[in-house]
Amino acid sequence: MPTSDEPRRSPPDLRSEYVAAAAHARRTAVLASVESLLGWDEQTMLPPAGGAYRADQAAAVASLVHTARTEPAQRDRLERLATSMEGGEGDWSDEERVTVLRLLCDLRKQLRLPARLVEEIARACIDGQQAWVEARRHSDWKGFAPHLARLVRLKREQATCQSPDLDPYDALLDDHEPGARSSDVSALFDRLRPGIVALVRACRGSRCPPRDDLLRQHFPRAAQESFVRMVAEKIGFDFARGRIDTSEHPFCSTTGPHDCRLTTRWDESYLPTALFGVLHEAGHGLYEQGLRSDAFGLPGGEAASLGVHESQSRLWENLVGRSLPFWEWCLPLARRMFPEALSDASPEEVQRSLLVVRPSLIRVEADEVTYNLHIMLRFDLERALIRGELAVADLPVAWDERFEQDFGIRPATAAEGVLQDIHWSAGLIGYFPTYTLGNVYSAQMMAAVETDLPDLPAAITAGRFGPLLEWLRERVHKHGRLIDPGPLVSGATGRPVSERWLVESLWARYGPAHGLETLPPS
Amino acid sequence: MPTSDEPRRSPPDLRSEYVAAAAHARRTAVLASVESLLGWDEQTMLPPAGGAYRADQAAAVASLVHTARTEPAQRDRLERLATSMEGGEGDWSDEERVTVLRLLCDLRKQLRLPARLVEEIARACIDGQQAWVEARRHSDWKGFAPHLARLVRLKREQATCQSPDLDPYDALLDDHEPGARSSDVSALFDRLRPGIVALVRACRGSRCPPRDDLLRQHFPRAAQESFVRMVAEKIGFDFARGRIDTSEHPFCSTTGPHDCRLTTRWDESYLPTALFGVLHEAGHGLYEQGLRSDAFGLPGGEAASLGVHESQSRLWENLVGRSLPFWEWCLPLARRMFPEALSDASPEEVQRSLLVVRPSLIRVEADEVTYNLHIMLRFDLERALIRGELAVADLPVAWDERFEQDFGIRPATAAEGVLQDIHWSAGLIGYFPTYTLGNVYSAQMMAAVETDLPDLPAAITAGRFGPLLEWLRERVHKHGRLIDPGPLVSGATGRPVSERWLVESLWARYGPAHGLETLPPS
Repeated sequence: MPTSDEPRRSPPDLRSEYVAAAAHARRTAVLASVESLLGWDEQTMLPPAGGAYRADQAAAVASLVHTARTEPAQRDRLERLATSMEGGEGDWSDEERVTVLRLLCDLRKQLRLPARLVEEIARACIDGQQAWVEARRHSDWKGFAPHLARLVRLKREQATCQSPDLDPYDALLDDHEPGARSSDVSALFDRLRPGIVALVRACRGSRCPPRDDLLRQHFPRAAQESFVRMVAEKIGFDFARGRIDTSEHPFCSTTGPHDCRLTTRWDESYLPTALFGVLHEAGHGLYEQGLRSDAFGLPGGEAASLGVHESQSRLWENLVGRSLPFWEWCLPLARRMFPEALSDASPEEVQRSLLVVRPSLIRVEADEVTYNLHIMLRFDLERALIRGELAVADLPVAWDERFEQDFGIRPATAAEGVLQDIHWSAGLIGYFPTYTLGNVYSAQMMAAVETDLPDLPAAITAGRFGPLLEWLRERVHKHGRLIDPGPLVSGATGRPVSERWLVESLWARYGPAHGLETLPPS
Repeated sequence: MPTSDEPRRSPPDLRSEYVAAAAHARRTAVLASVESLLGWDEQTMLPPAGGAYRADQAAAVASLVHTARTEPAQRDRLERLATSMEGGEGDWSDEERVTVLRLLCDLRKQLRLPARLVEEIARACIDGQQAWVEARRHSDWKGFAPHLARLVRLKREQATCQSPDLDPYDALLDDHEPGARSSDVSALFDRLRPGIVALVRACRGSRCPPRDDLLRQHFPRAAQESFVRMVAEKIGFDFARGRIDTSEHPFCSTTGPHDCRLTTRWDESYLPTALFGVLHEAGHGLYEQGLRSDAFGLPGGEAASLGVHESQSRLWENLVGRSLPFWEWCLPLARRMFPEALSDASPEEVQRSLLVVRPSLIRVEADEVTYNLHIMLRFDLERALIRGELAVADLPVAWDERFEQDFGIRPATAAEGVLQDIHWSAGLIGYFPTYTLGNVYSAQMMAAVETDLPDLPAAITAGRFGPLLEWLRERVHKHGRLIDPGPLVSGATGRPVSERWLVESLWARYGPAHGLETLPPS
């Protein structure tokens, strides 16, 4: 692999083709980032009556992005470059080769989608999200069902168009987790499931389970705002290149190479809602801020996959934020912000109170252990919807029955059940399984970090998060999506991807907190 | 003029041409509104490091807007429609005729601008504004001068391209105040000036001038935020269709037919900064919200001119917000929000304290009387810059000398002088005179309102602003820019445009507050 100092020996016309292809990708990213901003603004700032026109704006920009992405001249350039690279012509770095292949692969997918369909999906997503906000507020499944039916139909059409050789669900999954296939995901989930089910059962049978009364006190919103901002800043989120706002559903949105925006929601009677919302989204944000800004809009500056993205958010949320060293550092700060609620608490008490396992209705409020059961449910249902094995009209009943079977409780309202998540309303299907893949990756990464950085607990106790962030920057962030998720995680950790470390990590932390003496099933 | 119930008798191909032309204008407005949102976000939300990429985003969207606006098919449609209308073909309403003429006139102006120039100006404006923020912060004229020189050069080029028959400054003025010519503006200002100069002199010689100590106490920011929001809502600003945020320089930005965003700034030691900032911007916002949303993107749904816009903001800020009836209504509310500062104040005291005349350095903090002197200074200097009679390098000296001559004081720093306004940094040249035109229009409108609505003072005392807003909606807002500013103001008030009512209004309010017995010069 030549370094940048060596003279390039590729023919000059191919070199200028490459430069033009990269410039085109960067220009397209400028427009795509405007689309992101429209979405961020819609969720955080848009006045209530502005929704219909925002749908027009988003559809117009989505259509421009699609037109730019699918420009025939760009396809021709990339096809010529790929052919000449395959033929051994020119002298290309690995990054240049992968860049061309990735861009071409994306473009071919896009080219199979008619502009009409892209615009229709964009509009259905905006309409769907607005309908979902209202429907969830009033627990009105019927108000949302036609939107979901329209989205399922459109997403199936998208899947069939863009990857005619794949199972339609796999085609959608591939958009979020490149190379993943639902049969493999299913198999991984099948191996993971027994360890989790056994842990949930063991925790529920505990005679001395942890309690979270400590976290269910009054935490004034203004103090929470200062507190979570300080925590985000301390773990490394750069506010010169980002911000935190409020939205119905927390998210992280990148609207430029130096502009990454987190959101959270607030609950004055339960501290973890905002704090772990922000730790999670800041984990995403640290990944985005760790991508190479010089390659913004190119595969070298883009996230590897949603699963890898989720591994970063989960790592900071669960493996850092629920650890004892974190609270040894953080509690004095929290005590200053919330003197009434926390003045008598010890780090051990706070940390143990964060390890409650309690089957509950709402995914985003679920504990770390049962969370994966929420995901497996959604994975199975959305796959059945796309494959036509489940009608949208039958979804609420299917949801409630499966939920009762997995959790032993049944949602009383649609708002607490099938209407709780924004994803489907935003056209995000094939997205949910990446959450559990992220949990799997995060545990595997943390196991490797613990070997590589034996002093990490002491550093975190001292408020030094730099060594951990540096490890992630070096092993994960800086590679962008030049390496596929599987090899990226294997390469970063030195081991093939496995659910083993997640099971071990959950048992190692939740077992002692529940006074368990049993070992995880082998 | 046929009503909408009568059958249209224009030939069907021309009718469909008209529909297509209107649809094109609406589509272009969608993109232009995205450009507005990028600007609003830049001033209110953008993280500090995001500026460079925002310039790329704004330039890309500006270029798309320009491409859409200048689409040859639209020009052809409008030319055919205008020709056939001139020839007496078809049966068109007055609104349809004016719509075609306005759109065609705009399009011809645009077509004379090369896309390269449009993009360069957009970029220079973003760069200029960012440089201005820094330059003003550090009072660093040299850091801003090259940006201004670039902008003056580009705006002169724009003027020459778009209106080759006009004086370059008049070409820029025409963009903001259609039909206005700087020789007429100069003449109006010459007639206005003596009355203002005499009033300033008389007020400065007062032996019992009003004092504003009452307003220079501690007004906590959180209470100010609630207070100004309540006031804006009460005068009629609809928060379902708008919002208020914070920015360096207050502005009002429309980002959709139901999405109008105001900004203000805050000074905890001086209540009027935020309150009158919001009254002013809400005045703009009431106009925007009063435009016909069904005609968004068409002349029937667009503001008549900047001068007319400013008449609305000034009317609410000065003629309502500094009146006794307003404070008879507002003071009990203000006392609840600021009990420590205002519990002993009477409406008369507050109102009189808002009528201080004090020559001062900063335009946006200037009193209502000297304000017009700030404008006349900028009008003369920017006209000289564009005409090449003044070099950018000589601007600070020219500013300071003229300022001393007009106000008897000299700015100590560039930040308090030539660097104080955002306008030139944003490419807004030919904009300043519209502020004083707005003052002239607003006084003339308020004189007509007082005749038409004799009970208005009692209504305002009772917190009923509806009759006034209804008058403005009916006489001004609903006409959009289907009528030129001059005829619009004459038609609304029943009198030709004149500076007379502004001079009378200022003397009638500021004279008694300063214990003056003299009358305005006739």
